[in-house]
Amino acid sequence: MTRTVISSATKEVIISVDQPFVIIGERINPTGRKLLAAEMADGDYSRVEADALAQVAAGAHMRDVNAGIPLADEPKILAECVELVQSLTNVPLSIDSSIVAALESGLAVYKGKALVNSVTGEEERLETVLPLIKKYGAAVVGISNDETGISEDPDVRFEVAKKIVEHAADYGIPAEDVVIDPLVMPVGAINDAGRQVAHILRRLRDELKVNSTCGASNFSFGLPNRHGMNAAFLSMSIGAGLTSAITNPLHDPEMQAIKGADVFMGRDPNCKDWIKKYREPAPEGAEGDNARRREGRRRRRA
Amino acid sequence: MTRTVISSATKEVIISVDQPFVIIGERINPTGRKLLAAEMADGDYSRVEADALAQVAAGAHMRDVNAGIPLADEPKILAECVELVQSLTNVPLSIDSSIVAALESGLAVYKGKALVNSVTGEEERLETVLPLIKKYGAAVVGISNDETGISEDPDVRFEVAKKIVEHAADYGIPAEDVVIDPLVMPVGAINDAGRQVAHILRRLRDELKVNSTCGASNFSFGLPNRHGMNAAFLSMSIGAGLTSAITNPLHDPEMQAIKGADVFMGRDPNCKDWIKKYREPAPEGAEGDNARRREGRRRRRA
Repeated sequence: MTRTVISSATKEVIISVDQPFVIIGERINPTGRKLLAAEMADGDYSRVEADALAQVAAGAHMRDVNAGIPLADEPKILAECVELVQSLTNVPLSIDSSIVAALESGLAVYKGKALVNSVTGEEERLETVLPLIKKYGAAVVGISNDETGISEDPDVRFEVAKKIVEHAADYGIPAEDVVIDPLVMPVGAINDAGRQVAHILRRLRDELKVNSTCGASNFSFGLPNRHGMNAAFLSMSIGAGLTSAITNPLHDPEMQAIKGADVFMGRDPNCKDWIKKYREPAPEGAEGDNARRREGRRRRRA
Repeated sequence: MTRTVISSATKEVIISVDQPFVIIGERINPTGRKLLAAEMADGDYSRVEADALAQVAAGAHMRDVNAGIPLADEPKILAECVELVQSLTNVPLSIDSSIVAALESGLAVYKGKALVNSVTGEEERLETVLPLIKKYGAAVVGISNDETGISEDPDVRFEVAKKIVEHAADYGIPAEDVVIDPLVMPVGAINDAGRQVAHILRRLRDELKVNSTCGASNFSFGLPNRHGMNAAFLSMSIGAGLTSAITNPLHDPEMQAIKGADVFMGRDPNCKDWIKKYREPAPEGAEGDNARRREGRRRRRA
């Protein structure tokens, strides 16, 4: 059983097939969010604060923090966001950037053992990111593409993952500190995307014995009823071995799929979490998904 | 690839791992439905009619018909219901009774190749039901319990399934005409129920090479948010090899889980069915789940 331990100053999260699925809260990410990007570039992090608090309240075990704003001082902004989010919540963070200087400035201020998002199988990325991971004692997301791009052959993507794990070992980073992203393709474009992912996930779990993560919403790109498709994707990927995902815990269908999968996999003893989350009737003043679900029902009845 | 072909007079349904998941519409079943039972005992089948039409419109590929009413003339009622439902819809039927005489009277009037629900691994049941299956050229659901009850050991349940398939072969019934129900336990009582089912399903698919079915709602018995749990159960069981289930296609979470699983498994070319079912905006006068979902959203927005 491979256990990836990520921590903040006061809290540990374990990614492992014998633990509840780890939800890495998405959305502190200005990509495609113009208003957020403009605010963050101006040093206004109020939305970052609100997002962080809402997602942790909704059940995120970790948070992904990204400051990818074109022409902005990303190393400075990412470090400020990391410090801010760590001051607001105790969940461990995933520090997310494609700029190595930004990853380093984020790691420099981070308290605990971070998950760095990400390295690929490209030689140049491996040689610049892995030394940082080792220096700061972090864990890293390894994305299964390399100089040749993203293969449609899942076994080629598996070989890229293997190469990342091997390079990490050369830098003294153990396999349990490499979390592989098998790369989820949009199923609307590549019909075999689900079976591809299931195939890689099983090989990652059984052969390479590493943990895994992914961006859960890529699968449904371009399709109607994306939350419904994301939900099916998450349950089925968890069944195939997926142990964490970047997703938004405020989305109820995805959360039900994840929490239901934890029950199915025997990781929610006595269904305690499920019952707590979905029990009725509501205690007075209850918040979160459950309250919203009830509210939805009330309105539908009205 | 094992293909179980079930048919009505004019329509064929194929249960197979390379085909869309087969939804056997539940609920023409008076068990626990007092009003329906009383009406059916009086020869009033109006609710049977309405149920049948609604479920087929919502996407049931087959219908389960049960007339288990205490002290009523079950053989007569079941035969009448089979004839009625066959006159209303063209979907193949699952003829469901624990009384052998009722199964025979249903089979006698059925046009096509029925699925008989069910036989168990009990010697006495095998010896009375299997000859009927052979006589009418039907297929049969084999439930993986025997004289000793339902084992909590999934490998024992697998052995019972194997015994049913072997006995069927002795009567000249091929393995493709035996659809195994692995018996789904309530996960609220037996925490390992999900992993048990996944384990048996994989063995049924890979070793015994037979199709499978189950009552999808048993899993969530006693838990809150049963539809959400049924949805996760269905997606994950389909991933493990489940090829059909008795479920209610009018329940939207379950339908999304099934249709999403078909997409994930590569059984919905170009996501055509998914897009058709969940596409927006609605054509004028659209009916069914999609219309209800939109209506729900409209009210929530209001």
